[in-house]
Amino acid sequence: MKHFISMQQLSGETINRILKEAESVRKSPITINKQLFAANLFFEPSTRTKMSFEVAQRKLGLEVLDLHKEGSSLIKGESLYDTAKTFEAIGADFLIVRHPSDYWMDEMEEEGHLNIPVINAGSGKEEHPTQCMLDLLTMYQEFGNVEGKKVVIAGDIKHSRVAKSNAHALEKLGADVYFSAAPGFEDQSLHYPYITMDEAVEIADVLMLLRIQHERHIYKTEMYDYLSLYGLTMERAAKMQKHAIIMHPAPINRGVEIDTKLVESKQSRIFKQMENGVYVRMAILTHVLKEWGIINENEINKRKALNII
Amino acid sequence: MKHFISMQQLSGETINRILKEAESVRKSPITINKQLFAANLFFEPSTRTKMSFEVAQRKLGLEVLDLHKEGSSLIKGESLYDTAKTFEAIGADFLIVRHPSDYWMDEMEEEGHLNIPVINAGSGKEEHPTQCMLDLLTMYQEFGNVEGKKVVIAGDIKHSRVAKSNAHALEKLGADVYFSAAPGFEDQSLHYPYITMDEAVEIADVLMLLRIQHERHIYKTEMYDYLSLYGLTMERAAKMQKHAIIMHPAPINRGVEIDTKLVESKQSRIFKQMENGVYVRMAILTHVLKEWGIINENEINKRKALNII
Amino acid sequence: MKHFISMQQLSGETINRILKEAESVRKSPITINKQLFAANLFFEPSTRTKMSFEVAQRKLGLEVLDLHKEGSSLIKGESLYDTAKTFEAIGADFLIVRHPSDYWMDEMEEEGHLNIPVINAGSGKEEHPTQCMLDLLTMYQEFGNVEGKKVVIAGDIKHSRVAKSNAHALEKLGADVYFSAAPGFEDQSLHYPYITMDEAVEIADVLMLLRIQHERHIYKTEMYDYLSLYGLTMERAAKMQKHAIIMHPAPINRGVEIDTKLVESKQSRIFKQMENGVYVRMAILTHVLKEWGIINENEINKRKALNII
Repeated sequence: MKHFISMQQLSGETINRILKEAESVRKSPITINKQLFAANLFFEPSTRTKMSFEVAQRKLGLEVLDLHKEGSSLIKGESLYDTAKTFEAIGADFLIVRHPSDYWMDEMEEEGHLNIPVINAGSGKEEHPTQCMLDLLTMYQEFGNVEGKKVVIAGDIKHSRVAKSNAHALEKLGADVYFSAAPGFEDQSLHYPYITMDEAVEIADVLMLLRIQHERHIYKTEMYDYLSLYGLTMERAAKMQKHAIIMHPAPINRGVEIDTKLVESKQSRIFKQMENGVYVRMAILTHVLKEWGIINENEINKRKALNII
Repeated sequence: MKHFISMQQLSGETINRILKEAESVRKSPITINKQLFAANLFFEPSTRTKMSFEVAQRKLGLEVLDLHKEGSSLIKGESLYDTAKTFEAIGADFLIVRHPSDYWMDEMEEEGHLNIPVINAGSGKEEHPTQCMLDLLTMYQEFGNVEGKKVVIAGDIKHSRVAKSNAHALEKLGADVYFSAAPGFEDQSLHYPYITMDEAVEIADVLMLLRIQHERHIYKTEMYDYLSLYGLTMERAAKMQKHAIIMHPAPINRGVEIDTKLVESKQSRIFKQMENGVYVRMAILTHVLKEWGIINENEINKRKALNII
Repeated sequence: MKHFISMQQLSGETINRILKEAESVRKSPITINKQLFAANLFFEPSTRTKMSFEVAQRKLGLEVLDLHKEGSSLIKGESLYDTAKTFEAIGADFLIVRHPSDYWMDEMEEEGHLNIPVINAGSGKEEHPTQCMLDLLTMYQEFGNVEGKKVVIAGDIKHSRVAKSNAHALEKLGADVYFSAAPGFEDQSLHYPYITMDEAVEIADVLMLLRIQHERHIYKTEMYDYLSLYGLTMERAAKMQKHAIIMHPAPINRGVEIDTKLVESKQSRIFKQMENGVYVRMAILTHVLKEWGIINENEINKRKALNII
């Protein structure tokens, strides 16, 4: 029984099984026939991921506990382990955690032992496994699988957990991964080849743009040039292969990493990714709860979601 | 299929139909027999309106998604359209939006197209249609209708969306609308006659007081005199007609626009208004969901609310 | 019909009845067969108590309304009474209130009359009745009752509502109460004997540690010595009686009032207390709702919680 923390812990087989389940959930909703409590502990700002988990949980029929950092005892300096253990004590059946540190899970496990599963909703600069799974689902829907597909991940590679989670998983699943990054955004510790944006649009089956966190990394004066130098302009997009798709984990900086007109273009799968996030998370939650023996197959209602009755 | 943004878009007939439905819901609760997600996006502080919408949604049996500005991606500078579109993508069936700008809806529609209805929960200085509807319901309960009734709206007209939404709707429904305002609080762009508070108490069938947002508009030294000069004192209230009622959208500044002893007086309908807010919003939600084909008549359970079973 | 505000208002008999009900709820869950709205108004930070109430409410099948101070009209200066009355008006069936003042309830009752019950979730420096009840339940589970048991409450007595609520209730129920406090943490207005931590570990059947709110009371330089001078070290814990238990209301300052290794030691009941909090609050809510005639015995489903069906 493992916590769901990193894509690196999942075999290709497990990834494929969960994606298949997600696709099945998308087509025919499921609910869990048992009162279970999800505790969503977000220690970083998030709209998409948090709400996506919440919708996934509600669609499954679960109860949602939402920790608000602002009004919580955490400002009194409690450790993450004690907070997690508190939620276990009051009846949470599993935890969803977003955390700024790459070491939060190690630190928790040093302090003690949790008896309920933890699912990583994005942490530090390395891991965002549920985002990676929804990205994979989006590519699978397009191409069946990712074997031999050229996936270019473009943007602030250095600070992006989305880039790293995806690169490792895509490589494991047989894709050819490329990076594209403005000077200073490269991550030298990774072995994937770097190409320019002009090269990227020509070869990519999947062009995965990342958010430029300009509040941190670029001087405002340089911002104006970012799109034309490194971003996806209309002109560059016109050179993409017809079957190629544009992805972005959002939130989007319109006019920075992508021309605003491309956000909902025919080749964009950006909002499709968000939609897929709900199904993927339903599948991941069900997978983890079954692995931990918290639910069994009989407690899952198929084709009986409330909106079908 | 229209978004529910302004009282000006509603015919007298539609207003009357929704009010009738609200009164019916008050007497015999309804639920919606389908899992639907409401997303409540409040970009300004609110207790009453937000909680009133939430109770309305829960009484209808809907799922409620609550965006907390503080912990959201919005602080990363995402556009309102992209946030709205995100909620659409993850499964929201409609949006409730409160916004500080008068132009939020125009700006959203310029950026792209939403496929789910949006309901205005108060915006800028012009529009607060659901507040207006609950005010109308309160007056209808009192007088049957508002035709020929003298309604005096008193306070900071200039900055009040409640004043403007109500004035337009009341005029359309045949009421005689008057304004009463301290110097500097008038809105010169509107044609309604201004009268003093002493005149107001003598002629009003409905005396609708507004909150004085003293944190913005009045010097503290002048605050002490506001009640006696422009507010509803005990003395002035004694001169009101016996059948006349006192209204206030709240939050109340006790001792500023109204003597604290009048808040729950016999003629006050202030807490009645709040109660009506829930029924009106249930009726508006049902109306909009039906108009958009999101629910049909068969999916509404009458007289079968949980607390009656 | 009384609000649930202070342990001092409860007879020993009532306390015992509620504890018995809590123990029964723990073994066989109950739900309330009626749509009821809880409004949780927390005007101070809280994780444990707020989430514990929320789990209790959801397990009972209630709807939960959650006031977020940050985004509420309260920042516009509305009185607590008006906020409470608003929740009553929009349909709350009862209120849970946490408040920094000792006089909040008196002030509310001076301003007007509430028609729904209020339950104190911790206020000022004097009252935290639901925490006291969960502490009592934990002791009852251990010893059957507290008669003649030596309970030492150790820490910042002066600023602790937990200390005061517990001391009064324990005395009423026949326990021998002792205090232990570093210089400056004593409360001279209370008559319980003070002993040192070294004496405490030898005589205590129950050693109830309090959180040291060091952000307020101790200079950082002195903090390093607190554990060895006044806290529960490994060395002191070794001198405790075998049957004695360690309690703490949490959040815990690991390494300050208690050695981190003792938090989950065999004698610690700290996480057990949190678990008990949910059952006690389910019992208190049910007790109050029945007293007020909001529910009757027939509306309580025994042994039919969702997770048993």
